[in-house]
Amino acid sequence: MPDRPKTPLLDQVHVPADLKRFSDAQLRQVADELRAETISAVSVTGGHLGAGLGVVELTVALHAVFDAPKDKLIWDVSHQCYPHKIITGRRDRIRTLRQKDGLSGFTKRSESPYDPFGAAHSSTSISAALGFAVARDLGGVTPEGLGDAIAVIGDGSMSAGMAFEAMNNAGHLKKRLIVILNDNEMSIAPPVGALSSYLSRLYAGEPFQEFKAAAKGAVSLLPEPFREGAKRAKEMLKGMAVGGTLFEELGFSYVGPIDGHDMGQLLPVLRTIKARATGPILIHVLTKKGKGYAPAERARDRGHATAKFDVVTGEQKKAPSNAPSYTKVFADALLAHAAQDDKICAVTAAMPDGTGLNLFAERYPSRCFDVGIAEQHGVTFSAGLAAGGLKPFCAMYSTFLQRGYDQVVHDVAIQRLPVRFAIDRAGLVGADGATHAGSYDIAYLANLPGMVVMAPADEAELVHMVATAAAHDEGPIAFRYPRGEGVGVDMPERGEVLEIGKGRMIQQGKRVAILSFGTRLSEVLTACEALAAQGITPTVADARFAKPLDRDLLLKLAADHEALITIEEGAVGGFGSHVAQLLADEGAFDHGLKFRSMVLPDIFVDQATQHDMYAVAGLNAADIRAKVLAVLGIAQIGEKTA
Amino acid sequence: MPDRPKTPLLDQVHVPADLKRFSDAQLRQVADELRAETISAVSVTGGHLGAGLGVVELTVALHAVFDAPKDKLIWDVSHQCYPHKIITGRRDRIRTLRQKDGLSGFTKRSESPYDPFGAAHSSTSISAALGFAVARDLGGVTPEGLGDAIAVIGDGSMSAGMAFEAMNNAGHLKKRLIVILNDNEMSIAPPVGALSSYLSRLYAGEPFQEFKAAAKGAVSLLPEPFREGAKRAKEMLKGMAVGGTLFEELGFSYVGPIDGHDMGQLLPVLRTIKARATGPILIHVLTKKGKGYAPAERARDRGHATAKFDVVTGEQKKAPSNAPSYTKVFADALLAHAAQDDKICAVTAAMPDGTGLNLFAERYPSRCFDVGIAEQHGVTFSAGLAAGGLKPFCAMYSTFLQRGYDQVVHDVAIQRLPVRFAIDRAGLVGADGATHAGSYDIAYLANLPGMVVMAPADEAELVHMVATAAAHDEGPIAFRYPRGEGVGVDMPERGEVLEIGKGRMIQQGKRVAILSFGTRLSEVLTACEALAAQGITPTVADARFAKPLDRDLLLKLAADHEALITIEEGAVGGFGSHVAQLLADEGAFDHGLKFRSMVLPDIFVDQATQHDMYAVAGLNAADIRAKVLAVLGIAQIGEKTA
Repeated sequence: MPDRPKTPLLDQVHVPADLKRFSDAQLRQVADELRAETISAVSVTGGHLGAGLGVVELTVALHAVFDAPKDKLIWDVSHQCYPHKIITGRRDRIRTLRQKDGLSGFTKRSESPYDPFGAAHSSTSISAALGFAVARDLGGVTPEGLGDAIAVIGDGSMSAGMAFEAMNNAGHLKKRLIVILNDNEMSIAPPVGALSSYLSRLYAGEPFQEFKAAAKGAVSLLPEPFREGAKRAKEMLKGMAVGGTLFEELGFSYVGPIDGHDMGQLLPVLRTIKARATGPILIHVLTKKGKGYAPAERARDRGHATAKFDVVTGEQKKAPSNAPSYTKVFADALLAHAAQDDKICAVTAAMPDGTGLNLFAERYPSRCFDVGIAEQHGVTFSAGLAAGGLKPFCAMYSTFLQRGYDQVVHDVAIQRLPVRFAIDRAGLVGADGATHAGSYDIAYLANLPGMVVMAPADEAELVHMVATAAAHDEGPIAFRYPRGEGVGVDMPERGEVLEIGKGRMIQQGKRVAILSFGTRLSEVLTACEALAAQGITPTVADARFAKPLDRDLLLKLAADHEALITIEEGAVGGFGSHVAQLLADEGAFDHGLKFRSMVLPDIFVDQATQHDMYAVAGLNAADIRAKVLAVLGIAQIGEKTA
Repeated sequence: MPDRPKTPLLDQVHVPADLKRFSDAQLRQVADELRAETISAVSVTGGHLGAGLGVVELTVALHAVFDAPKDKLIWDVSHQCYPHKIITGRRDRIRTLRQKDGLSGFTKRSESPYDPFGAAHSSTSISAALGFAVARDLGGVTPEGLGDAIAVIGDGSMSAGMAFEAMNNAGHLKKRLIVILNDNEMSIAPPVGALSSYLSRLYAGEPFQEFKAAAKGAVSLLPEPFREGAKRAKEMLKGMAVGGTLFEELGFSYVGPIDGHDMGQLLPVLRTIKARATGPILIHVLTKKGKGYAPAERARDRGHATAKFDVVTGEQKKAPSNAPSYTKVFADALLAHAAQDDKICAVTAAMPDGTGLNLFAERYPSRCFDVGIAEQHGVTFSAGLAAGGLKPFCAMYSTFLQRGYDQVVHDVAIQRLPVRFAIDRAGLVGADGATHAGSYDIAYLANLPGMVVMAPADEAELVHMVATAAAHDEGPIAFRYPRGEGVGVDMPERGEVLEIGKGRMIQQGKRVAILSFGTRLSEVLTACEALAAQGITPTVADARFAKPLDRDLLLKLAADHEALITIEEGAVGGFGSHVAQLLADEGAFDHGLKFRSMVLPDIFVDQATQHDMYAVAGLNAADIRAKVLAVLGIAQIGEKTA
């Protein structure tokens, strides 16, 4: 096949056990070949490149030394798992990564026994590994057996509270457990926070080295009466000042830092630890994200996520866009308000680029806060900002806001603090698959008293909702919008403040009304075009608000139509459920109403394009048309529903 | 008034500013009087005693030195806030604590400007205080102004990841911020984890003192070539070994440990810090939970929470119970299964007593894991245990499981791992009020694909559900049950494994069917007795499962009755919403069904007795009866609905 790298040794690796036959020098070569194969594969599929390139040597070394799948290798976040997939029996499918019916871009239990614990959100690996370690010691039974539990976690992921909780518990339980801190000084964005500075100091080197030397000499130089105390001091120094203090304080042995691209360091250290570790141990490995591929090393994000690209030039092949992304529309609208109102500030949890807040941070650095991978803190910090009289926009992906749910309830909603939640990646998200789907936020926010929940039907509506949120000082308000491009509507000069809890009519029809919440509206209108050819003209309305509901609009739609269909990019329990509750209470079902609620199905939808995922979910135009025909009892001829 | 302590100085304190007139010696006396008044008040109301007694001196000292409400004093968890309430203008109502229409047992923004940020869940205070500090520096406006931001946080709360996230962010932002670590070596239970051991070592004293001395001497004793390195080493020692290393690594200055009951230490330290602090500073204060009241000091939980009691003897006045608590029933049932199956293990997040797992921990210490205040980790750790072939019961309060929501979605549900969630304190909880209500779990769990969600109608049903969960290896399963006593039904010899997704008929009636999920069933039956007197006999069914739903039962109830009413102890988006979705999809509303869904109202219900809270919520027998009459169009004569 053209363009495929030559990989004579890698070609002999079908399962990790095949690595055991190689010499250390050959393992070095396997790593080089694995790097080339990874680059080649991602050039075809697009995906997460930089993280995988950074752990090529570590991947080979771990699999050469340990015995997966009996030993449980758990990749935190796991977007760095492509090299691991290649040498654990999935090389033949590696060019299907992140495609429909292809390999997941993350580790996945259902995909391979070499993925003992899937991931995609960060900072879960130590907790999971500790679970395996405890299960091993308590006689747990798995098909592959239970050996060592090894978590590989990045320095960015380590800043999340969850990782701290797991370290704290592991240090207490004292089980044999191996944590590899993959320190590349990068999460998706450069990591922030005091822990990051601490890690930098750890390997800044000189002071520590000198200190070590000084400490070594100190005991013998001290006069006799000081010796005993100094000896104990020296013991403490070993654990407290030579490096890794913070981890040792939490009960871990600390090894490192070592060069994560040097097999000559990795292999002996891992072998020693395999032979000798007793309790929890942390190995501090320094790596470079994007290592070994110049275009990635040069990129600001170290090739974090990439479209398909040309291997030689590194040039990415991106489809031209027809409309701005919702993310960009949000970011621009927020900037416009921030220019007018110096109380507006912004909070992101390690996603400045993904949320568009990088623009805000450039323009208003003192008013933009990247709190790190720390959604719990991010939400309550926003609540504190609001209590202090500022107007915080807390911008998070829907799926990650789940991390701060209790804080939304307890710190924001109960106190009615005016935090503005800008919820990106609502609904199905495409290649990142089920773990990143923003399916639940409507349900978990709209049931909170006093919360306002909006979703724009298109990018112009998003501009109005940013304006509405900026103006809303009475309590919390959220707006959710999808990944990807808008629909290409004309953009307003400036956002209008919407009336809270009022929807809008899109078209007046008869017999059936469709009430849309969010960006399915364009699919609804496409369905209506097809229906018009059959002489059916549904009424269409845009709810704008899932909370509070537009009672008058709902009752009118119910009264004037024999059928009412709601549609949303969310799971049951959300918008449609609230509508059903209101209509039931008002007696709208008492004498018959063909009510249907189109929601995400009761499955986790695997990765594909967003359109294909919505086809699986049954929320595309064809499905809407079919639903209308079905509810009206009209047979559908010669057409499939997806 | 009899039994009230004499408090001549405290009587002069109406607002904290009144403390400024007193000498240090008088402040010492104010503290003694405040302690006596706190004991007296709690003896009348019951509530959290030990935590407040531990911070009496700290409370007085903070208010004497700082200037609330301009300075923002934020009590973490805030069950230690009773002394604070007494000296911030609420003494006249202090004997209404935790009663209906009385003072909240926690800080509450709506109650007083001296409560700038309410709390009840742990570990939020540093995030909130950082928000105030940033708002102050960015020109935020509040009615009281913005001065210092001071978080008072316990050592147990410090173990939560959220606190770590906040410290990490605060250390990075370098704003002036004061964190007081109230280290009493107790959360509700004795704290666990490596951080706790670390704190103990910090003030174990001797080694540190000697080390300090040795370090001081060391420089001058070193030969010349070592001096420079050693000098730098000494600077590092100051920050790294003398105490507080972990906090200083996170960017905080560290002061302490100091004796939190010694005004002679507290006042000068606070005054110095007020005058001189620049960046974030942590003051390590050692206190004794229950301090100064012998019965509390003697108690295993240091008087954490108490019923009304006799001040002299400390004897608590508990109402006799008629039935075992749901908590105890769960705990006993789990023990019975654990005796038969050594794969069963249990996980609690710092609530061994509250969840009943203290019994499990005594019997099977190696199979019971108290992970500390760390719900995120606790859930994923449970997922790891399940992946390792064990059968973990993850026992948490409904309101605290919100902390681990993303982990339930991402680590448990998506991977279909058989974690058993034992969800205590479901529904409204009484004196702890809105912050502790378990209102949302049905909604946030039942929308997850593959999750099984159960609720027992009584304590015998709970036994069956524990058996069902123990036997369910196919994926995650949850059962939710309320605070308090069962209804006194006969208990089964042993639990039966229920058929997943099947409800049960309770009584066959006509015209209207009531489908209950959870312990409202007893209220339903009470309502039915009253209705019987009017010749109305509703059909009553117990759903047992909110997911999967019993489709056959639902369709039969819908088909056979003109009205169907669901009832649950949860907010909209839960059981009733799922029922409505199914019925709508099946066309049950098409030709008329009087469907009503009784759920928690769209307000945060303030503390009262559970019964009174459910009256406010409209979910008691009288409300059910009224709903039946209303849906049947029968006028209700001479009776109120609550």
